[in-house]
Amino acid sequence: MPDQTSEEAYRSLLQHSRELTWTAGLQALLGWDQQVTMPPEAAEAHSMMSSIIARIVQRKAVDPRVGAWLQTAGSEEWALTESANLREWKRDYEKAVKLPEDFVAKQAELASKAYEVWQQARERNDFGVFAPVLAEVVAMARQEADYYQYDGERYDALLDIFEPGLTVVRCEALFADLRHQLIPVIREILKSQPEKPDLFGSMDFPADRQAVFNRRVAADLGFDFEAGRLDETIHPFTNGIACGDTRITTNYRLADPLDTLFSTIHETGHGLYEQGVSADGTPAGQACSMAVHESQSRLYENEVGKGRPFWQHRLSAFNREFGTSVDLDDVMRRVNRVEPGLIRIKADEVTYNLHIIIRFEIERDLLREEMDVTDMPRVWREKYKEYLGVEVTDDLCGALQDVHWSDGLFGYFPTYALGNVYAAQLFHALKKDMPEVESSLAAGDFKTLHGWLREKIYVHGRVYMPDELIERATGSPVSTSYLIDYLRKKYLSM
Amino acid sequence: MPDQTSEEAYRSLLQHSRELTWTAGLQALLGWDQQVTMPPEAAEAHSMMSSIIARIVQRKAVDPRVGAWLQTAGSEEWALTESANLREWKRDYEKAVKLPEDFVAKQAELASKAYEVWQQARERNDFGVFAPVLAEVVAMARQEADYYQYDGERYDALLDIFEPGLTVVRCEALFADLRHQLIPVIREILKSQPEKPDLFGSMDFPADRQAVFNRRVAADLGFDFEAGRLDETIHPFTNGIACGDTRITTNYRLADPLDTLFSTIHETGHGLYEQGVSADGTPAGQACSMAVHESQSRLYENEVGKGRPFWQHRLSAFNREFGTSVDLDDVMRRVNRVEPGLIRIKADEVTYNLHIIIRFEIERDLLREEMDVTDMPRVWREKYKEYLGVEVTDDLCGALQDVHWSDGLFGYFPTYALGNVYAAQLFHALKKDMPEVESSLAAGDFKTLHGWLREKIYVHGRVYMPDELIERATGSPVSTSYLIDYLRKKYLSM
Repeated sequence: MPDQTSEEAYRSLLQHSRELTWTAGLQALLGWDQQVTMPPEAAEAHSMMSSIIARIVQRKAVDPRVGAWLQTAGSEEWALTESANLREWKRDYEKAVKLPEDFVAKQAELASKAYEVWQQARERNDFGVFAPVLAEVVAMARQEADYYQYDGERYDALLDIFEPGLTVVRCEALFADLRHQLIPVIREILKSQPEKPDLFGSMDFPADRQAVFNRRVAADLGFDFEAGRLDETIHPFTNGIACGDTRITTNYRLADPLDTLFSTIHETGHGLYEQGVSADGTPAGQACSMAVHESQSRLYENEVGKGRPFWQHRLSAFNREFGTSVDLDDVMRRVNRVEPGLIRIKADEVTYNLHIIIRFEIERDLLREEMDVTDMPRVWREKYKEYLGVEVTDDLCGALQDVHWSDGLFGYFPTYALGNVYAAQLFHALKKDMPEVESSLAAGDFKTLHGWLREKIYVHGRVYMPDELIERATGSPVSTSYLIDYLRKKYLSM
Repeated sequence: MPDQTSEEAYRSLLQHSRELTWTAGLQALLGWDQQVTMPPEAAEAHSMMSSIIARIVQRKAVDPRVGAWLQTAGSEEWALTESANLREWKRDYEKAVKLPEDFVAKQAELASKAYEVWQQARERNDFGVFAPVLAEVVAMARQEADYYQYDGERYDALLDIFEPGLTVVRCEALFADLRHQLIPVIREILKSQPEKPDLFGSMDFPADRQAVFNRRVAADLGFDFEAGRLDETIHPFTNGIACGDTRITTNYRLADPLDTLFSTIHETGHGLYEQGVSADGTPAGQACSMAVHESQSRLYENEVGKGRPFWQHRLSAFNREFGTSVDLDDVMRRVNRVEPGLIRIKADEVTYNLHIIIRFEIERDLLREEMDVTDMPRVWREKYKEYLGVEVTDDLCGALQDVHWSDGLFGYFPTYALGNVYAAQLFHALKKDMPEVESSLAAGDFKTLHGWLREKIYVHGRVYMPDELIERATGSPVSTSYLIDYLRKKYLSM
């Protein structure tokens, strides 16, 4: 393509990007199907279909013409969106070509083996069963980082996959601050916290009634069911399959409709973001990053869904739907109960971040080769004791609880806490920009909130880097102070 | 690959065939999703995903290495299954490479345009709106036949796509016989047929109750829900997505649970066939042909589902489920009512074949250029009057009723009637082989039936050509006499 103009090269990239996006959409659809609709006996055939589509996507991502087009198109000055697209295409392409096809295949194989061993280890409640294969996974993660290359340290290369620009240095600064501030806050909360109210006794909440209620909440929050679905699955997730096709999932917990509801609201936050980007097949039409995504789910789940205004409006519908007569103060006490525990996914919004910080520190030390996989149960015990004040009783409640490492995902956990940091900062800015927002939430009107997020976050896609996006949306650089202030104010003046 | 042995070539073909099958499985999954789960606003994005996966499948099908492998592997004597696989791989490959990629793309484009115009023509109830684009579709079908080449006449090349080995000469022989025999049979039936019983008045049958009942029937017939699903859609279909993943669909008609039930039983017949093949990614693990597939759905729908033994067992459960008190003789009269009409998909099992014969004759004459597209409404009127004795009142009930031609499908219709011919012949042989089958059906036991079909049809995949498969299963060459006898016996001794 020696005679291609830079405009032609840009158009070629655009076309390629769209095809890659739709092909990845097929992969996403297959993934959704595996978790929602696939019959049990299809698992093996689907896993083969899964590797086929993964290879097709991977091959498309490393198409050498992309390199040539990027070079040609790069010789020009472009407007904001186009230049962001070029930056992100380059980023994606360079990441993709750095991993040899063999390595990607081996990693996928190891992941499926590690997942099986992890399940066996869980059955036997014995981290020792998982340790050898986890050591292999860590070794491959180190090798992956080396393929990607890095300026600072190895772990940086992996953090950057999930959150562009994130480094160990930045994580340490944010998380050290968070940890030092949170530990005393939690102690203080625990001193003054009232009894946990028993809202439902031994009542049973049928899935079909919950489905109706959750669907209505998601729709009220702004989820467009003409361009999406809500289905049941075991581990809820959101999948932005294509333009006009965002699928959220939930899990109906028959003894506690609030657990279900917060899971639905969380996924609705993700879903609104996916429905809010243009999904035009370019980076500018995609969600910015994992942590920004998580900020959207957390903001809806915690700042909004666990706030008093939300329940001022929603409680009567809840009581009506389920035949309960729950009191507003009791709901607030129940949904904002702080209880340091062993299980991350059951953690409240205050202690949750400490669970993440522990995983971050372990990942960092593993990647630095300053810690051995076999030390994990001990380190886990020590850190949970030190940060959360709880005793790890066994591996199931300890280092075997998360699926992520079995899947080779190192660098993913930090985005959860960073999402909380972003969410609090965004909610703070929203209230400053739109002082009426809390009264509109109390009136069951989510348009102000939704419109602000659309304008500040959704429409920008990947045009800005995550920290720049948050800074532009809120007027301040990313800081943990908003999260600390939010938690202090909410929990210590309750 | 100059030094490849024929065993190596066979193994390469096997691996390629599996990958092609799983990739086609992705395409099937996307198709299922479009008709069952896709949110309405995703239509455009899904149609782009659809063309991408179609192109991937098409490119894989014409991979030139297949030609070389076939040549190398062909130099050897192979056992039955392997030699059938080689024959069918060759068949598929030669068909695929004969169509230029451009032509396939243009045909797909024209099909989507023609489908839209067909819908517009239906809205305006005016065949004239559809005629110009249909003329283009017919021209492309002629060109397609020319690409494929043929010994006898053009239409043969298209018939052979849907039913390997089928020719105009064979169709004419079968259909002329069928037509001459059926017309007097229908006249005789109409003379003696009692009043149509009104079973349900204005009762309403909620979809969820019907879903429970239909699911139970499908399971009783042998459909394995661990390896399949039953969902609702507008136009029911069956999709064998992969090994362990067969999806059948139905449509809940709230005023008539029998209509729903027969649609479910029909698709269950298809579904049992898909679940009965090995689905190992080779031709020997695939269903034999369209007409053999249709014979399975028709056999379950008509010979079994509309037979007295089936209802002797099922009626009490039906009455219990829906709170009705329908009488066995009335059900038999209702489900076996013969009523010459204008709409193919509403036709009873006797007149249905005449609808197909009319379409066959029209397709043949269009392909022979002995008829012009613009003549179709007139020809339609004349043939419906002559064969079925009914007056075509408008195009919606006439030449605009079927979607097939808008999709470029010429040569497909004949497989419906051929399926009926096969079904009657199979049912005849089954009763001879297993004289106890009717009493086991009357006891609600479908194992004899299912086991016989498995042994005679399912396990053979595409090892034999369709007519050979039927002959081996029944001990006689394919003949319309079994269908005529079955209909005479059932309807003229009632």
